[in-house]
Amino acid sequence: MNKTFKYNKLSKDDAVLLLVDHQAGLISLVQDFSPNEFKNNVLALTACGKYFKLPTILTTSFEEGPNGPLVPEIKAMFPDAPYVARPGNINAWDNEDFVNAVKKTGRKQLIIAGVVTEVCVAFPALSAIEEGYEVFVVTDASGTFNEVTRDAAWMRMQAAGVQLMSWFGVACELHRDWRNDIEGLGTLFSNHLPNYRNLMTSYFAITKK
Amino acid sequence: MNKTFKYNKLSKDDAVLLLVDHQAGLISLVQDFSPNEFKNNVLALTACGKYFKLPTILTTSFEEGPNGPLVPEIKAMFPDAPYVARPGNINAWDNEDFVNAVKKTGRKQLIIAGVVTEVCVAFPALSAIEEGYEVFVVTDASGTFNEVTRDAAWMRMQAAGVQLMSWFGVACELHRDWRNDIEGLGTLFSNHLPNYRNLMTSYFAITKK
Amino acid sequence: MNKTFKYNKLSKDDAVLLLVDHQAGLISLVQDFSPNEFKNNVLALTACGKYFKLPTILTTSFEEGPNGPLVPEIKAMFPDAPYVARPGNINAWDNEDFVNAVKKTGRKQLIIAGVVTEVCVAFPALSAIEEGYEVFVVTDASGTFNEVTRDAAWMRMQAAGVQLMSWFGVACELHRDWRNDIEGLGTLFSNHLPNYRNLMTSYFAITKK
Amino acid sequence: MNKTFKYNKLSKDDAVLLLVDHQAGLISLVQDFSPNEFKNNVLALTACGKYFKLPTILTTSFEEGPNGPLVPEIKAMFPDAPYVARPGNINAWDNEDFVNAVKKTGRKQLIIAGVVTEVCVAFPALSAIEEGYEVFVVTDASGTFNEVTRDAAWMRMQAAGVQLMSWFGVACELHRDWRNDIEGLGTLFSNHLPNYRNLMTSYFAITKK
Amino acid sequence: MNKTFKYNKLSKDDAVLLLVDHQAGLISLVQDFSPNEFKNNVLALTACGKYFKLPTILTTSFEEGPNGPLVPEIKAMFPDAPYVARPGNINAWDNEDFVNAVKKTGRKQLIIAGVVTEVCVAFPALSAIEEGYEVFVVTDASGTFNEVTRDAAWMRMQAAGVQLMSWFGVACELHRDWRNDIEGLGTLFSNHLPNYRNLMTSYFAITKK
Amino acid sequence: MNKTFKYNKLSKDDAVLLLVDHQAGLISLVQDFSPNEFKNNVLALTACGKYFKLPTILTTSFEEGPNGPLVPEIKAMFPDAPYVARPGNINAWDNEDFVNAVKKTGRKQLIIAGVVTEVCVAFPALSAIEEGYEVFVVTDASGTFNEVTRDAAWMRMQAAGVQLMSWFGVACELHRDWRNDIEGLGTLFSNHLPNYRNLMTSYFAITKK
Amino acid sequence: MNKTFKYNKLSKDDAVLLLVDHQAGLISLVQDFSPNEFKNNVLALTACGKYFKLPTILTTSFEEGPNGPLVPEIKAMFPDAPYVARPGNINAWDNEDFVNAVKKTGRKQLIIAGVVTEVCVAFPALSAIEEGYEVFVVTDASGTFNEVTRDAAWMRMQAAGVQLMSWFGVACELHRDWRNDIEGLGTLFSNHLPNYRNLMTSYFAITKK
Amino acid sequence: MNKTFKYNKLSKDDAVLLLVDHQAGLISLVQDFSPNEFKNNVLALTACGKYFKLPTILTTSFEEGPNGPLVPEIKAMFPDAPYVARPGNINAWDNEDFVNAVKKTGRKQLIIAGVVTEVCVAFPALSAIEEGYEVFVVTDASGTFNEVTRDAAWMRMQAAGVQLMSWFGVACELHRDWRNDIEGLGTLFSNHLPNYRNLMTSYFAITKK
Repeated sequence: MNKTFKYNKLSKDDAVLLLVDHQAGLISLVQDFSPNEFKNNVLALTACGKYFKLPTILTTSFEEGPNGPLVPEIKAMFPDAPYVARPGNINAWDNEDFVNAVKKTGRKQLIIAGVVTEVCVAFPALSAIEEGYEVFVVTDASGTFNEVTRDAAWMRMQAAGVQLMSWFGVACELHRDWRNDIEGLGTLFSNHLPNYRNLMTSYFAITKK
Repeated sequence: MNKTFKYNKLSKDDAVLLLVDHQAGLISLVQDFSPNEFKNNVLALTACGKYFKLPTILTTSFEEGPNGPLVPEIKAMFPDAPYVARPGNINAWDNEDFVNAVKKTGRKQLIIAGVVTEVCVAFPALSAIEEGYEVFVVTDASGTFNEVTRDAAWMRMQAAGVQLMSWFGVACELHRDWRNDIEGLGTLFSNHLPNYRNLMTSYFAITKK
Repeated sequence: MNKTFKYNKLSKDDAVLLLVDHQAGLISLVQDFSPNEFKNNVLALTACGKYFKLPTILTTSFEEGPNGPLVPEIKAMFPDAPYVARPGNINAWDNEDFVNAVKKTGRKQLIIAGVVTEVCVAFPALSAIEEGYEVFVVTDASGTFNEVTRDAAWMRMQAAGVQLMSWFGVACELHRDWRNDIEGLGTLFSNHLPNYRNLMTSYFAITKK
Repeated sequence: MNKTFKYNKLSKDDAVLLLVDHQAGLISLVQDFSPNEFKNNVLALTACGKYFKLPTILTTSFEEGPNGPLVPEIKAMFPDAPYVARPGNINAWDNEDFVNAVKKTGRKQLIIAGVVTEVCVAFPALSAIEEGYEVFVVTDASGTFNEVTRDAAWMRMQAAGVQLMSWFGVACELHRDWRNDIEGLGTLFSNHLPNYRNLMTSYFAITKK
Repeated sequence: MNKTFKYNKLSKDDAVLLLVDHQAGLISLVQDFSPNEFKNNVLALTACGKYFKLPTILTTSFEEGPNGPLVPEIKAMFPDAPYVARPGNINAWDNEDFVNAVKKTGRKQLIIAGVVTEVCVAFPALSAIEEGYEVFVVTDASGTFNEVTRDAAWMRMQAAGVQLMSWFGVACELHRDWRNDIEGLGTLFSNHLPNYRNLMTSYFAITKK
Repeated sequence: MNKTFKYNKLSKDDAVLLLVDHQAGLISLVQDFSPNEFKNNVLALTACGKYFKLPTILTTSFEEGPNGPLVPEIKAMFPDAPYVARPGNINAWDNEDFVNAVKKTGRKQLIIAGVVTEVCVAFPALSAIEEGYEVFVVTDASGTFNEVTRDAAWMRMQAAGVQLMSWFGVACELHRDWRNDIEGLGTLFSNHLPNYRNLMTSYFAITKK
Repeated sequence: MNKTFKYNKLSKDDAVLLLVDHQAGLISLVQDFSPNEFKNNVLALTACGKYFKLPTILTTSFEEGPNGPLVPEIKAMFPDAPYVARPGNINAWDNEDFVNAVKKTGRKQLIIAGVVTEVCVAFPALSAIEEGYEVFVVTDASGTFNEVTRDAAWMRMQAAGVQLMSWFGVACELHRDWRNDIEGLGTLFSNHLPNYRNLMTSYFAITKK
Repeated sequence: MNKTFKYNKLSKDDAVLLLVDHQAGLISLVQDFSPNEFKNNVLALTACGKYFKLPTILTTSFEEGPNGPLVPEIKAMFPDAPYVARPGNINAWDNEDFVNAVKKTGRKQLIIAGVVTEVCVAFPALSAIEEGYEVFVVTDASGTFNEVTRDAAWMRMQAAGVQLMSWFGVACELHRDWRNDIEGLGTLFSNHLPNYRNLMTSYFAITKK
């Protein structure tokens, strides 16, 4: 038991969103989520980035080749984000431009998601931990070949001090209080949690009568 | 083995789409699909209805009460469709307005999806089979409490002569030939099959260079 | 495809409920449902029997021995039901008293549930089919050792013409129309479908304000 | 629905037990059951054969080679059973000695189990159905590569009229009535159903005090 | 390995029960348990709170809106418990009234359950750990969207020093010794563990004869 | 039960192998098998085609577009096989060249595998059944989006009289007798069943010493 | 990462085997293993205790009541082992006789298995860790209600420094070297690992020819 | 959280590959992977060893007996590797020759895979950690009896500081940068990741036109 645990909550003012290799080809390798589930999770996370105005950094690996281009929806959401098309580094943290883009934000909390989990996510996560960053991996917006490689990657990251999150947890930890903007958060949930949308639909059907 | 099997393919000119009780409250009962998966399947099926210009009939059960209103997206897609808010009949086929709406189409192939599978789908399916209709149940756009009740419902329907389909199978059997409209079908797939969209993204990224 | 399918709907006036060997000992053999799930399903089915005033017949096998007594809740719900403690027949249909109790009802639709599925349920189901009864097995109120033996039992029964149902399907097919008694059916659902109860709770919380 | 269903119950006087290729090497191919589960099921079925004094026929394929010898426990249980070491026929029914051994019993109900399900079990099952035998496949004493090939094999056999059983169902359908021999059947269950044994242990612990 | 592990057992005299956001709407989001399983677990935990006379604190988030009211059974069980309807704080620990209610008990062991696990449970759990409380999360009375988000939440909490418990473990660790009250604990188990109830039924059926 | 079942065994002299749309792009849609499992199954089936010298017909849909080219290994194995690049027909049976290629073989047993199961496999399977062919679908060399759409497709095909097979079942039913060529079949199994290869390795390690 | 990890291997000379509450009634609560799997694992572990001549301590909770007697096979294997029928302590470590029996052995490595995992196993495991023992929990010879409660229990124990083992791992770590007794260990594996027995059967079939 | 985490990346210049007991007999015990999946993973890992020119050490246990010979493909790939046929030590680290072979490489990073995970992998992994090596276990090239024993073994190793990896993670962490050799790594992936091969096939089909 960790007697001296410090709960560094994700903060809108100290977090960066790093989206690593969500490329059209690579995503076809993902089998630990159904394609619909994964798409929704990734778009939900990007919607969080947008909504909380997080500095966001995009990076890809060999977009020109079989890995395919970054999913267009992501590119479209962050037209002005630093975009590091890595010429070859597998670990994004080995790329100076990428690290500089992170450093330039001056922030210390890294929210990371990507494809595939044990490489494109775990490698920069471990590198960043080593350099003293707080690292939050968004497990459900990161995909890989199967549950076995996923579980191993999670345990390796957990042991190193990475915080394992879901996009919903990220959203809630960043938002802190519904009163900061009820409608905004409600819309985000409504767009990416069908059952929450249904709750809202039913609720407003009655109350707006 | 059925020596005299007749393959009555779904036809754009003979099929009706019946959407039964996809209501905001009832959908929260569905647990044999994840909410995202189910939402995508239902919207894919409705997109098929739209795309193939199938006569479509909407029906609900007690929209005013806990079952909640029809999912708004569906209502919006078919503003002019016959809409039968059943006053109490559990089996939609017990409702005269509903059956009349079906009969008025003059069509003999019924594509049915709904919530929950063993009741709102299976009951009208069995009724319609009995009256000589060809019935195609869209299994992945129909949801229920768990896999056990789903499997039992499927086997009951199979034994009665219901054709068990997926929305993708429905789309393909209706379309017959890509040459009828490559772009239209491609768009439909792209919108509801993330991995197919990725294939297209990668393909056009190269060829449009 | 069965061109001559006849949909004999379950009818309150023609159905009997047969509860076979839901004994305290035997239920500990059930592993294809969690204990809570199974208990809820069985009690939901018995509540249907009660609610629809179905003639109900209870039977057990060797209550005095390791199989244990009939679950007390069931006994308490049907104090006046024929109760056939079979002296040894494994197939309840081999017991004259049991068959006579069925015949005495004058009904032709048998709703059967029990433990274990491939024996205590399947055997009388097949016997009754052979004698011309319509048989509806309540799959989720019947339990067995594991999914393998369950699936095999279902396929054997399906091939013989048994209708595979869930307790919810039975309730809905018997009720036909909510207008017959909204509150009664609502209560039944509320007691055995937690998510339906939640829908009602939320609904009345708003409307009763 | 099959209006003319005839329930030919397994009978001690008309059934033969056919054990096909339960060989030490082939069993290592089985992955749709855990090794312990499979071993217990097979030994339970052989115990049934023994207990009900069923004529039993053993057959193997290439015992001398990689397929390995018949599991010794089985050989030991049926030292006098016809033993057909097939010189090459994959379908045991293609082997004249095997078919003759079956015919010599004069019985018409075949209880079949073996490895692997879709070949060593399904092939003779289909052959025997064609020749008018009643065929009962013991699904849980038959193993194969995975659930996919199992499910396909079951559906093929179901469509041909094979009865899909478990060893427990076989035991109960053969025994008919506990009064025929309470202790014998109890012992068989106690040896192969640990939870049933526990029921007996608890019961006798109290009653024998 | 933790050489200096201190086993701080849950104590009736030092534990508080915190029930966070078990609201009718939010519970419909839970899919990592079946509805029946979850309901039983939650009610079992509340029964523990009641039985062990634990100070209990209830809190909800936006009861008036789509999240829905606290499940009525819980409210009814703890009519006099502090009830903090949070005006917007997502993390209950960010709410001063809630923290004060905890502090007022003077206790240092927090038993937490809620919906959804990675937010409503994990956030206050981490906050409390940081402030030096011993935190025991009741995993099976806490629900979330799916197994992926659950597993991630568990690993995040484990790393921070949270003790992961089940309601049964909580009950047993609080009770310590059956002799403190055999009947009371037996009743609690009988009401929420159907197979335990069956054991008791069988046992008393024999001994009370 | 089918009293007049005729077991038409697959015959080397009457079977054709139809490989439908195993294209590099489409295969990335398959999620009911792991990629390795699927690849091995498909290559095992093609190896059967080769080994048994079955007339084989290849067909693809839009190879030039996102669906991608036929997997090169398949093309390489059957350089002289009729190759029908369908200009748009979704159901290969709607393509005259394809049907003619089938008819030209003069054979009546069709072994079909493809991607995706409910469309590229099921459609021609149903069409061929209707025209009186015997159809054997190789379930484990056919892939689709998930288990739900697979199961539905299987049940639809089963009801129409399709025989559901595995590649291993196909190989064994075609070979009939090991004596026809022990080494050939052994090699085929060794190449595609790792555990069978292990049996052989162990066996020959001892015997060849 | 633990830089100062010390690998204290299980030693025949320093290990005690503690079997906690493997009682006929309680075992019927176990659902995270199939009954056959669990029985085999427990008997394999007890066979290890016997084979390695480990001091073994048996303990039960309320044998006279619904929990039922200790499984007779276990009692029979260790007729002279200290046997602590706890009068009420849920945590065996709260029982002085039990702790004294442990202390009397003078050993510091505790191998613990029992029913149910999160209570009868985890509680004494945590108590013993606190007192400085090395604790090895045999996960597959310990059972509980379901995978959720199991996983939580494992994570709680892992965090406290418990070593999570399987019976096979225990056997191998104790044995160290096959040369200590090839036949003995081989027999133990042959009796409890059916696939290992098959390897031996095949091997000796060839070599003993 | 580990504030002082040091990310020691796998390095081509400091890593050794240890392949432990991938023997033809032992592999038939593996059931936590399908045989095809496991074979592919093991061969992918060995291909990594080859490709990155890692010093590789092979070891086996009782090759002459039922455990069977080392899989021939592995032997063939590393004809000059130190090959330690252990005369009896279960933990390879207990074998002096093995440890000497490791030491002779002068390297400090051990990549270990083997059969079975909780013994042949975990034992040397823990021994090596204790001696100050960095240990990377390749989880998907290591197999065992079932998921339960696997999970327990992983948690034991994680707690000791072992890094849990997949073969793909190993390959990527060793390669660091695609520019070191695009074709080489691409070929390795193409041979062992069918979906990656498909991406390449589709890509080159277009670009090479």
